[in-house]
Amino acid sequence: MLAYNIHHVAIAVEDLDKAIAGFESRYNVTPISREIIEDQGVREAMIAIGGSHIQLLEPLSPESPVGRFLSRNGEGMHHLAFAVQDIEAALTHLKNSGARLIDETPRLGGGGHRIAFVHPAELAGTLVELVEVGNG
Amino acid sequence: MLAYNIHHVAIAVEDLDKAIAGFESRYNVTPISREIIEDQGVREAMIAIGGSHIQLLEPLSPESPVGRFLSRNGEGMHHLAFAVQDIEAALTHLKNSGARLIDETPRLGGGGHRIAFVHPAELAGTLVELVEVGNG
Repeated sequence: MLAYNIHHVAIAVEDLDKAIAGFESRYNVTPISREIIEDQGVREAMIAIGGSHIQLLEPLSPESPVGRFLSRNGEGMHHLAFAVQDIEAALTHLKNSGARLIDETPRLGGGGHRIAFVHPAELAGTLVELVEVGNG
Repeated sequence: MLAYNIHHVAIAVEDLDKAIAGFESRYNVTPISREIIEDQGVREAMIAIGGSHIQLLEPLSPESPVGRFLSRNGEGMHHLAFAVQDIEAALTHLKNSGARLIDETPRLGGGGHRIAFVHPAELAGTLVELVEVGNG
């Protein structure tokens, strides 16, 4: 397997604080981290569940990708992130298998991890993010 | 935390065999199980990733819930499933916190597990399934 775990499931939300409070009330969880990722135009919170996370994403502006997603679809799941040990090897494998990549080379994402996005056409309409987590 | 892991992320697909072949070509994975769940109107395949799974769902008919999802949205993520140890305790907690449930009592899902769906309004537009996996 190219990826060794689901790193996170990202959910686009209108209001991060409201979403965190709702999640806390229903599932007894609080975020392990909060961060602003200017590069992706989001304010995010990570909630740990087992070896994976739920990532709540609030757009910094309506024109950002997540802002446009919200005005088109409303709140809901936005992308799925796989943990990989070596992101360059993963991107090379995907490229060689004919996959359409959004990021041909890794860039810096949340938590200081190197990340890359793969086009939704490669996994049944699902936007995929690869997150390099070393040995997990 | 009410749930102890992400059990699976379900992706609605038009053609299960094509989706499995695509996933295999891109990520070097094959399903660990395939099943028809008449009750949910789906044919499904489970792909293990770390301690979680990707579930690929093909509708048995266009009038089934997943069939209607596909004609409205096209292929993409359909629901998010959390593993719980005691589904009755989880449903009681959710009910007491004011959550809107789709299933007030558990029913039988894939792999012989007891499951219940929670309304998308309870987690930022995300349909949530609880899957009872005992001690995991």
